Amino acid sequence: MLAAVLATSIAAAQAASPATTTIPQASLQHAAQLRDKAVADDTGYKIVESLTTEVGPRMAGSEADARAVAWAVAKFKALGYDKVWTEPVTFPKWERKSEHAQVLGDHAQPLTLTALGGSPGGTVEGEVVRFADLKSLQEAPAGSLKGKIAFIDVPMERAKDGSGYGMGSQIRGRGPSAAVKAGASAYLMRSAGTDSHRNPHTGITRFEDGLTPIPSAALSAPDAGQLSRLVALGKPIRVRVALDCGWTGEYTSQNVIGEIRGRTKPDEVVVIGGHLDSWDLGTGAIDDGAGVAIAMGAGKLIRDMKQRPARTIRVVAFANEEQGLHGGRAYALKHGADVRKHQIAAESDFGAGRIYAFSTGAPERALGAVKQIADVLAPLGIAYTPGEGGPGPDISPMAAGGLAWAALRQDGTDYFDYHHTPDDTLDKIDPKALAQNVAAYAVFAYLAADAQGDFGSEPKQVTPPRE
Amino acid sequence: MLAAVLATSIAAAQAASPATTTIPQASLQHAAQLRDKAVADDTGYKIVESLTTEVGPRMAGSEADARAVAWAVAKFKALGYDKVWTEPVTFPKWERKSEHAQVLGDHAQPLTLTALGGSPGGTVEGEVVRFADLKSLQEAPAGSLKGKIAFIDVPMERAKDGSGYGMGSQIRGRGPSAAVKAGASAYLMRSAGTDSHRNPHTGITRFEDGLTPIPSAALSAPDAGQLSRLVALGKPIRVRVALDCGWTGEYTSQNVIGEIRGRTKPDEVVVIGGHLDSWDLGTGAIDDGAGVAIAMGAGKLIRDMKQRPARTIRVVAFANEEQGLHGGRAYALKHGADVRKHQIAAESDFGAGRIYAFSTGAPERALGAVKQIADVLAPLGIAYTPGEGGPGPDISPMAAGGLAWAALRQDGTDYFDYHHTPDDTLDKIDPKALAQNVAAYAVFAYLAADAQGDFGSEPKQVTPPRE
Repeated sequence: MLAAVLATSIAAAQAASPATTTIPQASLQHAAQLRDKAVADDTGYKIVESLTTEVGPRMAGSEADARAVAWAVAKFKALGYDKVWTEPVTFPKWERKSEHAQVLGDHAQPLTLTALGGSPGGTVEGEVVRFADLKSLQEAPAGSLKGKIAFIDVPMERAKDGSGYGMGSQIRGRGPSAAVKAGASAYLMRSAGTDSHRNPHTGITRFEDGLTPIPSAALSAPDAGQLSRLVALGKPIRVRVALDCGWTGEYTSQNVIGEIRGRTKPDEVVVIGGHLDSWDLGTGAIDDGAGVAIAMGAGKLIRDMKQRPARTIRVVAFANEEQGLHGGRAYALKHGADVRKHQIAAESDFGAGRIYAFSTGAPERALGAVKQIADVLAPLGIAYTPGEGGPGPDISPMAAGGLAWAALRQDGTDYFDYHHTPDDTLDKIDPKALAQNVAAYAVFAYLAADAQGDFGSEPKQVTPPRE
Repeated sequence: MLAAVLATSIAAAQAASPATTTIPQASLQHAAQLRDKAVADDTGYKIVESLTTEVGPRMAGSEADARAVAWAVAKFKALGYDKVWTEPVTFPKWERKSEHAQVLGDHAQPLTLTALGGSPGGTVEGEVVRFADLKSLQEAPAGSLKGKIAFIDVPMERAKDGSGYGMGSQIRGRGPSAAVKAGASAYLMRSAGTDSHRNPHTGITRFEDGLTPIPSAALSAPDAGQLSRLVALGKPIRVRVALDCGWTGEYTSQNVIGEIRGRTKPDEVVVIGGHLDSWDLGTGAIDDGAGVAIAMGAGKLIRDMKQRPARTIRVVAFANEEQGLHGGRAYALKHGADVRKHQIAAESDFGAGRIYAFSTGAPERALGAVKQIADVLAPLGIAYTPGEGGPGPDISPMAAGGLAWAALRQDGTDYFDYHHTPDDTLDKIDPKALAQNVAAYAVFAYLAADAQGDFGSEPKQVTPPRE
């Protein structure tokens, strides 16, 4: 998940078609049956088990990226999707080869860290200067850290909605550039995570234009605490950081798309999805094998219904979300002119915890139908929370262009214990919670696709966001 | 902690001195004051913080082994111990340099593992053959695993008393030899641990005489699950295991000993202690920085009392427990003839969880005094559980020779989440639980040292145990 989540303009959409959107009673009954079947079904879990086991880690641009694309094509077909295709996504390729760090001198000991995505390689030795927050580093005078290693140590707060990640991802995104400006030769941070294990959290960073990038890495939480205690001893603490990583050209991956054809309006689509790429450290189970499985599984269960919904269900497994929403942007570039044929969209990219809240960016005239969907979701423990949430990351470029979005918000209390770490593995997924997610996405997609009237998708002239 | 815990013969001790052992009322009152001061005191936590931060990992024979010895000598002196000295402990030295593994072929992905202590190095590629228990591997026909990699996948049960480690340590200790006998070229096991993190558990193994050792390692729990799922796909799964480690000569470390001199019988000693070495992966906080800190801290609090106990408190920081009780055996070799001057002994080597039970191997005539000690411990939440427990690992060679022992049993429910892994770090210690441990050891040591009469230490002709 990228932190930047865009709120789109509901007002703009409200100006469009005046007809009130409603969902037929028969559709609501079918959706309730679909829901009850889905919560007892393991299709979603089997999909994420297959992806994380057979492909494993699948960092964008890696050898496994192509295997993941082939897996997704084959899986869509095996699940009986009517149409399966790929669309190219080209991006710069970043590689991680090795990473080591150690305290030097009287307290010699290894430190566990991982390079931030986008970091250059290099071996640096220097005295560590600790900062208690990002602002302090940003205020360090130019040149004041010459020959030194900047270290920001801010523990991240645990929260159901993941809000603590806001500061964590800022420290990851902006800290390295602040360190360069102060003259530092390397950058270290406490991982943006809520766990207490020796498993550091990676994630993309970027250097501001005109700056010379420096090796930048995240320490595991216990290592950050250890380094702070060492610094607190009051004598200079020197550390060696050795990263072998960096940008190495360009790669073309694929968004993989499968469709369940609609009964009466096959050219109109409801889009659900997740992202197919993962970071390299874990097997990308909660980020975002779960999202891919939830969407694929929901489409499969809709396919198996006695009667298809009116519109087409389009499931997208996006390429390279992690390094900059490359799949979501490529989708928006290709399909941005077709906003009107996209009924509404939702992406699952916040783990595999239970969904606890539902909302949309739909205009007033669609809120009766939205409430009808919420009523079918309610038995799953999902509250209707109008005005909250936003589109998922890969949906956000299309949403910025006017696509209506829905949010099916997951309990992320433990998401940042595992996210972007070696610990993002299949065993962290509760099969029952995953089935609840599949049920919710199936209900939402089915009812949106069978609604009479629209959810406010309407072209807007907006530049797709960067980051 | 080594699994082998010896029960000594109470009957033999019962034959000795007939006088009934008792503790004066004044001593009991002083001990209660000591207890109440200790639970609110952070001496123990500061000691383990100092050791794990300033020395960090301290594997026997490593560069940090000597730093740990110097730290212990300096710390005993800084705490005001009356007499501080070292006694040499010589042992074979094992080194870990690097360790990697990966699945080859269609499902290529890295596996996280760690070499078992005592494993030879080497790079092996082979098909994985999975066994659901140790017995199945032991029954595999000779030669049946030629060119293959044996893999035992047995999850360990969580238990307050750590009893699940019995099977785990057997699989670690005997699995490699069983694999050699079946012709395997490498040995893998699911870590003997109860966690679900990508942090494998190391620990010593040994090969039976006459066998040619093979590279042997433990996978983290998620990796063991992953490998089992891959094998279950039903086609050959090939893995490359590359370990750079092995035995490299001999090293002489030191048992470090500090004494708080007794008031009236300074030549009689009550021994408490922990082991100073750790495995290399973590910083040895719960195994066994905590034990060293509990014993050192207890002695320091006794030193600070208005009146010393009659006998001397001897605190021992044992060398190289992890690779075969080398420190405990060296102590027994040097002091075995002095069993009678050792009143009673207890070692803390099961983490930093609260003590919940107290017992001794003392004879009938001392049980009145034991019950008096138990009564002062009771407000700490410690139950008197006669007939349970045994001596700590480094005490066991002396106990086998007739030394009376006490057990202060810790809650080990989460001990095997961290033990022998990179995750054995200071943040896993609850300072309040540690203070409760210090209080219990202080009470026990003080009262045993002030008791009138003995606890049954009596020379026995027993060969110190191997393993």
